Amino acid sequence: MVSKSQISLIKSLQQKKFRREQRLFVAEGFKSVEEFITSGYQVHTVYYTPAVAAKLHKLSKKTNIEEISAVELNKMSSLTTPQEVLAVIHLPDWPEITRAELLNRFTLVLDGVQDPGNLGTIIRTADWFGIKNIICSEDTVDAYNPKVVQATMGSLARVNLHYANLAQLIPQLNLPIFGAMLNGENIYSTDFGNEGLIAMGNEGNGLRPDIQALITKSVTIPRAGQAESLNVAIATALFCSEISRKTFK
Amino acid sequence: MVSKSQISLIKSLQQKKFRREQRLFVAEGFKSVEEFITSGYQVHTVYYTPAVAAKLHKLSKKTNIEEISAVELNKMSSLTTPQEVLAVIHLPDWPEITRAELLNRFTLVLDGVQDPGNLGTIIRTADWFGIKNIICSEDTVDAYNPKVVQATMGSLARVNLHYANLAQLIPQLNLPIFGAMLNGENIYSTDFGNEGLIAMGNEGNGLRPDIQALITKSVTIPRAGQAESLNVAIATALFCSEISRKTFK
Repeated sequence: MVSKSQISLIKSLQQKKFRREQRLFVAEGFKSVEEFITSGYQVHTVYYTPAVAAKLHKLSKKTNIEEISAVELNKMSSLTTPQEVLAVIHLPDWPEITRAELLNRFTLVLDGVQDPGNLGTIIRTADWFGIKNIICSEDTVDAYNPKVVQATMGSLARVNLHYANLAQLIPQLNLPIFGAMLNGENIYSTDFGNEGLIAMGNEGNGLRPDIQALITKSVTIPRAGQAESLNVAIATALFCSEISRKTFK
Repeated sequence: MVSKSQISLIKSLQQKKFRREQRLFVAEGFKSVEEFITSGYQVHTVYYTPAVAAKLHKLSKKTNIEEISAVELNKMSSLTTPQEVLAVIHLPDWPEITRAELLNRFTLVLDGVQDPGNLGTIIRTADWFGIKNIICSEDTVDAYNPKVVQATMGSLARVNLHYANLAQLIPQLNLPIFGAMLNGENIYSTDFGNEGLIAMGNEGNGLRPDIQALITKSVTIPRAGQAESLNVAIATALFCSEISRKTFK
């Protein structure tokens, strides 16, 4: 039995303001919850319905779990089709990213990505391609937004999201900066070397001028047809794939 | 002034059943409406608010247009933030696709893609890479669903969507069939030749066994990290890019 105030606290975590205040966020669905439990995240409480009790008990002996009714779970859920497990998790407190952590690897930089589905898909794709860190401008949609968490399909547990003032941070990192632009070098013949930042811009406006000014190489995905632009998650995936392909070729 | 019955007819087009009955669908937003007007689509009526009157009058002298209030337009709209133009358009009647049309080019085949956002993004991506035709299983989400139309950003006006019984149609086309699978050949070393079908499966289940049986080459996007899978629109884009890259390299 959960109290009304617990339910309303959990519901409040759908809003960034309350996530920041409480330093908590919510993940839903068995797979997603499982990924957070087995990752380095500190899980506060897992709420589950009797339907998944057996499966859940196997998962972890250390996690604080609480069986509730499907009706109660539905009240907490942000999903249109609530699943049978919901976890309240402590927001991670990543230390500020340093140059040393980013050497010999590629890191995504997102400048004002707004759509939660896009950010979620970018995180999932980054995880597929083994990218460990994503650095977001402060106005990028919050990664702990329930729609983002959902779209990552558990990958948020493995990819570290850093929010920073990009114009200040990027110069300090002193790494090659590849920027997705409309009139850059052909991505298919770009030599990405073995490290750097891949900077992707906002859905409507692309990279801001102050971030564009920091780019060391502008890169373009050549267009064979007529669409005006590519979705930002699609463009990000094409960059990840180009970087990854030489490892597998 | 539009009548209540006109508004309710237009709203009914949010449902597939009524789109099929009326042979009409809706596109919203200036850019999207513009693309349909300038394409081969037959536009029934464009509703617009005074705010865009000047811009709209320039667009076409032949299109049937009707100025309405923002309040009326909001009543018709399926968007949470309605735009200032909404067009009612006749559903196209594509003749059944033939082998001759698909020679020397690549065509996407979608087997049960369910999410409107995914289908819309796939159509937009196909348009970027110059793919003219997408063949969908009959249970793939309807391309004229308002969420799909919106996500295509106007590209639906340029890419032809065909719905068919894939298990019957594919063998008749007698083309190479590349299937996105988890244990196929490395996409980065696959020779795609110069024509064929690229078959992508449902979000949760991938390609159905009867479609898998028709594949001439199973192809896999190698994974460097830990995500369990890629989003279907992302995977489709990576196939489109691999096919396109040799043209630009």
